[in-house]
Amino acid sequence: MNIVLLSGGSGKRLWPLSNEVRSKQFIKIFNGGKQSMVERVYCQIKSADPNARITIATSKSQVSAIHNQLGSGVAISIEPCRRDTFPAIVLAAAYLHDVEKISKDEVIVVCPVDPYVDDGYFETLKKLALHAANAKANITLMGIEPTYPSEKYGYIIPENKADISKVTEFKEKPDKVTAERYISRGALWNGGVFAFKLDYLLQKSSEILGVCDYWRLLNGYADFKKISFDYAVVEREKCIDVLRYNGEWKDLGTWNTLTEVMEQPVIGKGIMNENCKNVHIVNETGMPIVAMGLKDVVISASPDGILISDKEQSSYIKPYVDGIEQQIMFAEKSWGSYRVLDADKNSLTIKVTLKEGCAMNYHSHRLRDEVWVVISGKGRTTVDGMEQEVSVGDVITVQRGCKHKITAITNLQLVEVQLGEEITVGDKIKHGESGEQ
Amino acid sequence: MNIVLLSGGSGKRLWPLSNEVRSKQFIKIFNGGKQSMVERVYCQIKSADPNARITIATSKSQVSAIHNQLGSGVAISIEPCRRDTFPAIVLAAAYLHDVEKISKDEVIVVCPVDPYVDDGYFETLKKLALHAANAKANITLMGIEPTYPSEKYGYIIPENKADISKVTEFKEKPDKVTAERYISRGALWNGGVFAFKLDYLLQKSSEILGVCDYWRLLNGYADFKKISFDYAVVEREKCIDVLRYNGEWKDLGTWNTLTEVMEQPVIGKGIMNENCKNVHIVNETGMPIVAMGLKDVVISASPDGILISDKEQSSYIKPYVDGIEQQIMFAEKSWGSYRVLDADKNSLTIKVTLKEGCAMNYHSHRLRDEVWVVISGKGRTTVDGMEQEVSVGDVITVQRGCKHKITAITNLQLVEVQLGEEITVGDKIKHGESGEQ
Repeated sequence: MNIVLLSGGSGKRLWPLSNEVRSKQFIKIFNGGKQSMVERVYCQIKSADPNARITIATSKSQVSAIHNQLGSGVAISIEPCRRDTFPAIVLAAAYLHDVEKISKDEVIVVCPVDPYVDDGYFETLKKLALHAANAKANITLMGIEPTYPSEKYGYIIPENKADISKVTEFKEKPDKVTAERYISRGALWNGGVFAFKLDYLLQKSSEILGVCDYWRLLNGYADFKKISFDYAVVEREKCIDVLRYNGEWKDLGTWNTLTEVMEQPVIGKGIMNENCKNVHIVNETGMPIVAMGLKDVVISASPDGILISDKEQSSYIKPYVDGIEQQIMFAEKSWGSYRVLDADKNSLTIKVTLKEGCAMNYHSHRLRDEVWVVISGKGRTTVDGMEQEVSVGDVITVQRGCKHKITAITNLQLVEVQLGEEITVGDKIKHGESGEQ
Repeated sequence: MNIVLLSGGSGKRLWPLSNEVRSKQFIKIFNGGKQSMVERVYCQIKSADPNARITIATSKSQVSAIHNQLGSGVAISIEPCRRDTFPAIVLAAAYLHDVEKISKDEVIVVCPVDPYVDDGYFETLKKLALHAANAKANITLMGIEPTYPSEKYGYIIPENKADISKVTEFKEKPDKVTAERYISRGALWNGGVFAFKLDYLLQKSSEILGVCDYWRLLNGYADFKKISFDYAVVEREKCIDVLRYNGEWKDLGTWNTLTEVMEQPVIGKGIMNENCKNVHIVNETGMPIVAMGLKDVVISASPDGILISDKEQSSYIKPYVDGIEQQIMFAEKSWGSYRVLDADKNSLTIKVTLKEGCAMNYHSHRLRDEVWVVISGKGRTTVDGMEQEVSVGDVITVQRGCKHKITAITNLQLVEVQLGEEITVGDKIKHGESGEQ
């Protein structure tokens, strides 16, 4: 099975654990805080089909997090910028054809990376692929059996209630009464899961974007319009089948739904008294949280902030957290991670963790000096061409304008003090080597 | 008026804002986070009686906080160790007699530093002093008119319901029904406020402790038994008067009572949605707090931790927070303050703030090296006798065994990275100068 996992954008609906640079699918919410959504889905696919060829369609900003969580071997189709699902899927399909050399006859299954589903879902994906390979339909959708008349989802109206049926029409998010009527007619939720032959999509790409070659898609990507796959393809296609899925399916887009699937009530440091009922704590800070006498509440803390919300109302946090202007306090990088320890007027103190063998790229700053204090491990620094081995207690001072980098010989941690009147992420000039910091 | 303010011990009932080193009376809870309990009471006394001679009886650990909040001019009677209220009051009385040269005829009024009261309270204190000066009674108590049949306070049973009456007896914390019966007889709460002539107490000191001289009390202090003033004196004295006080009086010992007197619902960074009812946020961290749809809840955050509690239940946090073992994350010092930024296995990173003109004492460590990075201001370091002027960006490395100190020429901040296998507060040797770090 060829499967394209759409790893979508960032957002603040799971603030303070999701933000502009960290998407919800990377939050370690399962297995007592050891497994993220993307890790869970990846394992489930591999367990349903050990030979599945998985490609993750995502943006550049997620590449480090994906490599850190799934390993460096995973195939990634990197969108140069965000252009909604049609260009993203087309790019991944072209990548499969032109880079991975997949035949045009083969079926591609596309699904989002973040639904919470049981293993039956992946068995259904296999059926979906099989049907798409043999059916006349150009697209085969998975339709999810509704469990309640939701106003949040689009509905697929099938010709009949059989396991596989032709699709009659699509309906946008209805009100509750309309949703009930749809459901009585056998309607299904549209979970954004579809299968098609590679050939079909490359044709659509040519029709809509004028190209279907991977390299030309990549180069022209920024010029494409933002357009969803549903709008560009699904809603215009006459010949679509739908396959019913009636297992567990949850959209973990809010704290309310996310906490429903947590196996333990507390992740990280948290204490509750016996009068807490239906309370969940997700704590990514080192600070202990004590909860007393709360009911139906989610508490979530990260270096970005602290949320305490009635579960029901946690769906409405966006306008409140959108107003919070804050610098990024924690970020995963290809070489490790960093965490802001202190932000003051003319200084910023961060803790940098580098993985053994990794290096940040060679760079300089125009407007700030930096001091590194190695607090664990061994490494090699390069400052204006001068190499030096460093270990615990060594101090490296880097004046503004100096080119510098550090390579971790073992796992390495350092405290970096940035000093300057204007400290910004943008003040960075890369020199002579590729990579990112 | 001579007034002795008892600035009591630390405790975790207002965790995470109070802890072993920081008492509740120093939490800046009034005036939008600008004024603490001790500052408020001090101002109130000075406004009721500009000539009041205020002496604060407290332990060594509170001296820096008192000086930082009330200025360096305030008189403090420092207990060498905690020995409950009788030795503390005796020591303060002897200090007034032997150091401040107060006559034995003068009246001393003793009251705790932490009740929340209106200005009428201090007018009553003046009446109390006046009565004690002229009455036959050896002790005059303030009795607080109960507002409900509390089970938390001791009761004073007066002979009659007159403004000033003889005391018939004292009753320990009763159950509710008994409390109601006491109140119907005109009983009053014992708020620990009493007035007596200095002479009387020095006599009691001689009787009970065998000495009444300040320097001998100070030297022998550690050998005294822990004994409360109520037990040692009040309950044994036959000749006591009580003066009724019927104004506002609140014991701000729990989050529940503390939040009742906050003028604003939010101190520090905090956002609430419109569905929050009777919610208070006290946030001493730089992290934003967002509260959604909560009712009757107090949220309090400091570098030590985060409390989210139903207000009613916030009285019961002690056993939950007693179990939290944590290093002190923030402390006020005579020279400024420090805050822990990061605690790792073999390193500790702290931010040190020194006030202009102040210096930490000259000291060394046996088991750790330190690196200082100056992030603001100017200062002068001394390392093994070598003096050096330092300013922003300067780095000082101090090996284990090196004697070192820094003096702030202007307000100064530095990041200190401590490195060693065993980093403890106890690893500190002072050299040649007095003071504290």
